Amino acid sequence: MSLMLDEIRSQPEVIKALVSSERDNIRSLAKEINDRGVNFSLIAARGTSDNAATYAKYMLGIIAGMPVGLAAPSIFTLYGAHPRLDHSLVIGVSQSGQAADVIEYLENSKKCGALTACVTNEEDSPITKTADFTMLCHAGPEKSVAATKTYTSTLADFAMLSFMLGKRDDLLASLAGIGDKIEQVINSLEDVIARRAERYRYMNECFVLARGINYATAFEGALKLAETCYVNAERFSSADFMHGPIAMINEDIPCFLYAPTGAAFDSMMGAARKLKERNAELIVVSDNDEILSMATTPFKIPFTVEEELSPIVYIVVGQLFAQYLATAKKHDPDHPRGLSKVTITR
Amino acid sequence: MSLMLDEIRSQPEVIKALVSSERDNIRSLAKEINDRGVNFSLIAARGTSDNAATYAKYMLGIIAGMPVGLAAPSIFTLYGAHPRLDHSLVIGVSQSGQAADVIEYLENSKKCGALTACVTNEEDSPITKTADFTMLCHAGPEKSVAATKTYTSTLADFAMLSFMLGKRDDLLASLAGIGDKIEQVINSLEDVIARRAERYRYMNECFVLARGINYATAFEGALKLAETCYVNAERFSSADFMHGPIAMINEDIPCFLYAPTGAAFDSMMGAARKLKERNAELIVVSDNDEILSMATTPFKIPFTVEEELSPIVYIVVGQLFAQYLATAKKHDPDHPRGLSKVTITR
Repeated sequence: MSLMLDEIRSQPEVIKALVSSERDNIRSLAKEINDRGVNFSLIAARGTSDNAATYAKYMLGIIAGMPVGLAAPSIFTLYGAHPRLDHSLVIGVSQSGQAADVIEYLENSKKCGALTACVTNEEDSPITKTADFTMLCHAGPEKSVAATKTYTSTLADFAMLSFMLGKRDDLLASLAGIGDKIEQVINSLEDVIARRAERYRYMNECFVLARGINYATAFEGALKLAETCYVNAERFSSADFMHGPIAMINEDIPCFLYAPTGAAFDSMMGAARKLKERNAELIVVSDNDEILSMATTPFKIPFTVEEELSPIVYIVVGQLFAQYLATAKKHDPDHPRGLSKVTITR
Repeated sequence: MSLMLDEIRSQPEVIKALVSSERDNIRSLAKEINDRGVNFSLIAARGTSDNAATYAKYMLGIIAGMPVGLAAPSIFTLYGAHPRLDHSLVIGVSQSGQAADVIEYLENSKKCGALTACVTNEEDSPITKTADFTMLCHAGPEKSVAATKTYTSTLADFAMLSFMLGKRDDLLASLAGIGDKIEQVINSLEDVIARRAERYRYMNECFVLARGINYATAFEGALKLAETCYVNAERFSSADFMHGPIAMINEDIPCFLYAPTGAAFDSMMGAARKLKERNAELIVVSDNDEILSMATTPFKIPFTVEEELSPIVYIVVGQLFAQYLATAKKHDPDHPRGLSKVTITR
């Protein structure tokens, strides 16, 4: 068994541990955000962590009414800018805690007046020494190069922060059960995914679409395929896709659609119809039978989950698919060519 | 001659007209931003306009010290959020002035307390009636579906706003000469590009890399190739590229590098070296002979321009390349399959 598969399967336990361990800690960060009158937030991250930041952008905006921008670290690291960051919260995300440019972004933000926080899987790492507050992943060592459990646990940290700021105790309660939901997905779909991956052995390109709160899922699903299967996987919001990229559609480029029940579902259904008109092959991850019926490869999620929490559950299908496709392609998912676990951008 | 080519060639005149016409107008917006004590900005846009917004994010951050986030319109349109937007500037970008979700984003932002502005090519359009301030493109009717002159003129508007907020009269003076620089690029490179496009007739995939202020150039260069040539063109920052996607590199996927002299140049040079180690074919747009010498297809910019203004000049090479590659592929660059000029997301 690959390390990646082992780590994918460990996610139910990781999320359960995180939810109980981080509650008080994240509540104190939420209190500080309110006490300081923070009115906007910037998040600095790269790679998988940047996809988690995209989830945070939507969740903090929707649930907590907090405008969020994704930081461009090079504004400090290459250009030496001095933005005014009073009343801002700047969050750095680095699973290893060592991303040099993210840490430099936090240091500079603090000098410019920001409250700072980090999300990391390493309790005693350079990033925790820099940030005012730390949110931990509690994922244990992640040995596979392709991040899986540190991604979903980072989402869980951001979900918890959003729910506390937005006083959504109902969603906080649902988050406590999300580990069990992931377990259900693995139990019901792992074998199906392992069999279906075969069909895509010679796929070199694909599109990955999602919208709204699951926009991050499109990015992360595409990144797993790129890292472990060397597939040129382009990710789009179903809305942006209609502004140009749909021109590229043909029957030889399959399209992944992450389409859970929720506010973004109609847009995904519209995209699915447009894609079918052009004879695109669809791989659909959904709890909705209508959109699943349009797919050549349907992956049915056997329950409906709150849209706000669906990214934590739905990406598990993308992780499993990447793992089994890598195996079908005879790649080692744990050691993608030319990648190392920690990438330090200076 | 295609409309697209005609519009590419018109850019020197468009930019010159814009620089003289918009000066007073944008100065009054800059004054209002200062008077209101705006401390962060959000920009709502899709497609090409979203790429222009990425340029604005860097420029306002670096030159004006203004933190900028790219808006997620669905936060309002799908999720009905109510963020706190006092002391914020929200800018909508829509060349047609009709992008329904961008307009809705501006309306909602105004209700949430934001100062609003727009960039558009249509003086009397729904977006100008919604926004408190309007920055115009002065590009005349754009008939080709692939946007070219409205992109560079939107960049010029954002450059002007950044320079006025940052009190950079030196760069403002350089902006006045940027139309002539575009003309030099077209005169010296159009024939070269037309000939070299032939080599890429059967290219179906490519990567487009740039960093920092030219990150937007990677996005826009990739979008032109996708829209007009149906090439699956993946765009990356040279920094993010090392976090996973470089695993996909092989000698059959060429890489475009936009690498002008400036603070991001060393990172691009580093990426070029890594790519050459993996036998990737490089297409390089640069004024620097060292990086050009690593390219199978070098496109030499015959002068060095301030990095802050280089995106307005360098993208013209990408536009010309897309136009001539579309022709080599026997596509009509003016009418990509399945696209219409105005895309309205609701």
